[in-house]
Amino acid sequence: MLTTPQSQAQRAGATKPILLTPGPLTTSERTRAAMLTDWGSWDGSFNELTASVCQKLLAIVNGAGSHACVPLQGSGTFAVEAAVGTFVQRDGKVLVLVNGAYGTRFATICKALGRDYTVYETADDVPTTAEVVEDLLAADSAITHVGLIHCETSTGILNPLEAIAEVVARHGRGLIIDAMSSFGALPIDARTVPFAALIAASGKCLEGVPGMGFVIAPRDRLLATEGNCASLALDLRDQHLYMQRTGQWRFTPPTHVVAALHEALLQYEEEGGLPARHARYAANCETLIAGMARLGLRSFLASEVQAPIIVTFHAPRDERYRFGAFYEAVLRKGFILYPGKLTQVETFRVGCIGCVGAAEMERAVAAVAEAFRELGIEIV
Amino acid sequence: MLTTPQSQAQRAGATKPILLTPGPLTTSERTRAAMLTDWGSWDGSFNELTASVCQKLLAIVNGAGSHACVPLQGSGTFAVEAAVGTFVQRDGKVLVLVNGAYGTRFATICKALGRDYTVYETADDVPTTAEVVEDLLAADSAITHVGLIHCETSTGILNPLEAIAEVVARHGRGLIIDAMSSFGALPIDARTVPFAALIAASGKCLEGVPGMGFVIAPRDRLLATEGNCASLALDLRDQHLYMQRTGQWRFTPPTHVVAALHEALLQYEEEGGLPARHARYAANCETLIAGMARLGLRSFLASEVQAPIIVTFHAPRDERYRFGAFYEAVLRKGFILYPGKLTQVETFRVGCIGCVGAAEMERAVAAVAEAFRELGIEIV
Repeated sequence: MLTTPQSQAQRAGATKPILLTPGPLTTSERTRAAMLTDWGSWDGSFNELTASVCQKLLAIVNGAGSHACVPLQGSGTFAVEAAVGTFVQRDGKVLVLVNGAYGTRFATICKALGRDYTVYETADDVPTTAEVVEDLLAADSAITHVGLIHCETSTGILNPLEAIAEVVARHGRGLIIDAMSSFGALPIDARTVPFAALIAASGKCLEGVPGMGFVIAPRDRLLATEGNCASLALDLRDQHLYMQRTGQWRFTPPTHVVAALHEALLQYEEEGGLPARHARYAANCETLIAGMARLGLRSFLASEVQAPIIVTFHAPRDERYRFGAFYEAVLRKGFILYPGKLTQVETFRVGCIGCVGAAEMERAVAAVAEAFRELGIEIV
Repeated sequence: MLTTPQSQAQRAGATKPILLTPGPLTTSERTRAAMLTDWGSWDGSFNELTASVCQKLLAIVNGAGSHACVPLQGSGTFAVEAAVGTFVQRDGKVLVLVNGAYGTRFATICKALGRDYTVYETADDVPTTAEVVEDLLAADSAITHVGLIHCETSTGILNPLEAIAEVVARHGRGLIIDAMSSFGALPIDARTVPFAALIAASGKCLEGVPGMGFVIAPRDRLLATEGNCASLALDLRDQHLYMQRTGQWRFTPPTHVVAALHEALLQYEEEGGLPARHARYAANCETLIAGMARLGLRSFLASEVQAPIIVTFHAPRDERYRFGAFYEAVLRKGFILYPGKLTQVETFRVGCIGCVGAAEMERAVAAVAEAFRELGIEIV
């Protein structure tokens, strides 16, 4: 019983706060213990570890054979920049679909890299629709790629990936998916969802530690990117070809992070893969929203567009509410929450992901209630 | 007694190989144990950890006050590319001093980023001299920056940093130092050695784990780089300003790697800082070279230009010698060596850095002797 995610989190909670954030998040003891070994980056055993990680990541999207997985040092944003720089030709143009900070960041990356781009923005609580993308692509033949945030962590909103992917493919453009906070928890099937590049990272729903991202792409598309990237470190084609040839990373890999991700992926498979991970997070999310509703705290998004990853809650209207004091009070009870990222509305966020279960979500709700009581803040 | 580097390495060696490589290397149990905690990247306690790491790194080069330390996700090469992209103006020109693979990589980075550059190359065993740099700078006023590898890990050769830095400063150009494999072990004093940027990483002589680099630069020079960098992820000025304003990393930090580096830096200070680290590595290097000489194995470099970081040895002339079989035989005895990186001469390399002492070096020499005996290879 001590090896289930819930009970591990309970033990960890005794001394260390549980992270209810979009990542880094609470990992299992077993995952962290994998970092107690030093690996030689040139050694065959480490090469096997890397190959196994890539194979497991491809399997999650049914991409074995057709697709390649290119791991990359750094945070998820490094991998997004690498994907834009590698897949978008220097004279290409990107349509960036924005409904939050990560969409805006995607556009900022296009700008920094000197790639032409245009932004289509909807409100924080409104998903982009395939119909709109259809019209935008029909109207501008210069657009070569579309950038989409699958689950926009700014609010937790889910964008309709499958429908948009179908439209983008039908128009012969390339889809670049930032699946940072959804990969491994929300289904993406590379056999039926066409994309040029799919980006995620070690420290999110796979429950590894942060320090590496990865990009999954159809092999032929990846090989056709020669000459696009104006970076050595972030050239995914170069990284892929070197790894194919040598089994090694081009530059020093974050060995301990890779080992932790490998161990996390073993546990992912043992738990039951994506369906089980999704079910646990969905239950976490339901438990959280129901519990907060009992306290009188409303979630920001309509339930139809709420991904079971992170939930944005309206802050209490009480004018004595300050996020900082609330955060500290909840931290003293063993939970780390996340600030809101909306400029128009006062909110805070609570993650549903990591090595936690419904019991932790219930305790988090109780901690929130107690914090407000202590701070003398009326919720409703 | 169990907490000295030597005895820790001995205990580790009982089950896990000791890494005698240029990094990742063998770390202490205490450093690895620091990764058993999950940190919230938004949390105040983690911000303190980051600030403390930067402060300690600046202190190593006496740069407090005058200089800033900008940590960056990814491997050391990511930090080199970030330094070139951030510090070299788009119409700048870099003189790259090359005597090995890392110098060549520096030039490749300039090329990828579209910065004009010129290469001055010496043989693998010949350091660049200040006199040559003087002539090259006098002859080409378009050169704005000089790229120098302090200790070139391809062989282990030490380039004369102080003398070259003096010349570069006198000519009013900016020096970008790749101090990846020397930082923390070989003295660099920011009060007397002028530079635009000094680059190193977590997993080398500081004995942290790999996963982050850092760039140290005079504050005014760093702030004057606006508009240079054609990257979001690798823009050091942007990273610095955000960190100054918020205490946080711009994008998800490798939290466990940062925590390990902090713990490694505490041990660095407890050991006695740079003089002690240098002395231990110098003793490791002497023990290694003397021991290998007893076996009849000659080191590639003249002792005057040998840095106490990694040593290149000529492989035995016996035609039955294959690095692969030799590597595996030594690995079975608990040590991981490193292949040579020279194209003209058959060599292998042995690192002197990491949480190891002279006793491990003696045992490594014994393992090498035994491996050759097993493989039936005559050394001389």
